[in-house]
Amino acid sequence: MPEPPSTVEGLNETLGIEYLGGTAERVEGRFEVTDRVRQPFGIVHGGAFAALAETICSAGTYEAVAGDGMVAMGQANQASFLRPITTGTAHAVATARHRGRTTWIWDCEISDDDGRLCALVRMTIAVRPRPSA
Amino acid sequence: MPEPPSTVEGLNETLGIEYLGGTAERVEGRFEVTDRVRQPFGIVHGGAFAALAETICSAGTYEAVAGDGMVAMGQANQASFLRPITTGTAHAVATARHRGRTTWIWDCEISDDDGRLCALVRMTIAVRPRPSA
Amino acid sequence: MPEPPSTVEGLNETLGIEYLGGTAERVEGRFEVTDRVRQPFGIVHGGAFAALAETICSAGTYEAVAGDGMVAMGQANQASFLRPITTGTAHAVATARHRGRTTWIWDCEISDDDGRLCALVRMTIAVRPRPSA
Amino acid sequence: MPEPPSTVEGLNETLGIEYLGGTAERVEGRFEVTDRVRQPFGIVHGGAFAALAETICSAGTYEAVAGDGMVAMGQANQASFLRPITTGTAHAVATARHRGRTTWIWDCEISDDDGRLCALVRMTIAVRPRPSA
Repeated sequence: MPEPPSTVEGLNETLGIEYLGGTAERVEGRFEVTDRVRQPFGIVHGGAFAALAETICSAGTYEAVAGDGMVAMGQANQASFLRPITTGTAHAVATARHRGRTTWIWDCEISDDDGRLCALVRMTIAVRPRPSA
Repeated sequence: MPEPPSTVEGLNETLGIEYLGGTAERVEGRFEVTDRVRQPFGIVHGGAFAALAETICSAGTYEAVAGDGMVAMGQANQASFLRPITTGTAHAVATARHRGRTTWIWDCEISDDDGRLCALVRMTIAVRPRPSA
Repeated sequence: MPEPPSTVEGLNETLGIEYLGGTAERVEGRFEVTDRVRQPFGIVHGGAFAALAETICSAGTYEAVAGDGMVAMGQANQASFLRPITTGTAHAVATARHRGRTTWIWDCEISDDDGRLCALVRMTIAVRPRPSA
Repeated sequence: MPEPPSTVEGLNETLGIEYLGGTAERVEGRFEVTDRVRQPFGIVHGGAFAALAETICSAGTYEAVAGDGMVAMGQANQASFLRPITTGTAHAVATARHRGRTTWIWDCEISDDDGRLCALVRMTIAVRPRPSA
């Protein structure tokens, strides 16, 4: 795997998102449910699910294309929320459905500690040449 | 406006998302671009845009329906990312496109300090009876 | 299965869409690729893929809920197009991902005769009480 | 405007979709509501709305980029259905929200004869070099 693009921890650290790695076909991640990811009603904020999916799908794409001098960034993030999570850990598994020259598409499923499906996120990741330094 | 549903600040505070209020037809919000909302390449993480849109559209819906004993929560969040933001403030304006009995749909535009459109988010908000205490 | 809601063949007949049935968890359908589903460049029009997915997911939901006096109708149709189809048959398989009281969500995959994935459609189907006659 | 890419009328003729033209920023189209676009309950099939949006947004993009040797094709079609149409004409107006080098994004609104908003479609159109003959 290429070296990380920067030392900015950023939103992933802010929200406690962990990228657990994987392959070019399947990656995983998670976050612990604490107040920092909740919305005012006490359930996980939909934006946290969207962020978790985007982090792991971007990372999975980047790891696969960086060796060819390319970068990866989110182009579209389509999340559907099925069941609220209030406590425990949110677990994400993303599967690559399309790995094109300019676009990758991943389906990310987010489940709770009991394995119940809580959110579905379809991520479109753009693959572009790395900008010159 | 009804009293806030809880005192949990949660993700909005974590990411610095401010809800600026509005009407049942148009609401606004924003966040300042700091490392807490950036991804590793130094640009704003797509999840932060998704979260900003969801916060203001949920709040706008909740304010309109709470008086009828209803609550509002995100059902779908469809974000398209057009232009990265690296610094300054992300400004969101959402317009209600549909206000149904069980579903509201909002279009949220997120722009940078120069007024350039950076993300489009279509939010579907479910409206449901408030759970009994 | 309940009797068909009407004798209007409509768009399904117009485009040659066949609903092949299945279970409350998995349904199938297809259409033959002729000029009636092509766009001007000679490939299948994206709207034909969207229609195929909506037909089979609506039908699968309707068959499952009609016995309870409910009807099913499309609420959102999110299609991503991965690979064009120019000839042969478009084959769709949809899997129910969420079967809620008011909303079902299906993931529909459309493939060509060689089994290559050509389109992904996430369908949200609203479930509502049957209108009084 | 460049000459049409082919003489295949295809799905547009099948469903009665008319492209009414416009500018690189705003295009229009429509279809008459007859049984050929209805689903079994007698309302317009969601796939017909998706197809109408895709036709006019693809055409609007193509007209703008063809002179540079590019073609346009649908990459994603995200439709939300707000209100059924049973009779009359479906009127579509699409506004370009992003005109990038490789991707255009349009917001398409579909209304009935009384001007009521019935469907919202966000179209992502891929712009690619014209394949060599």
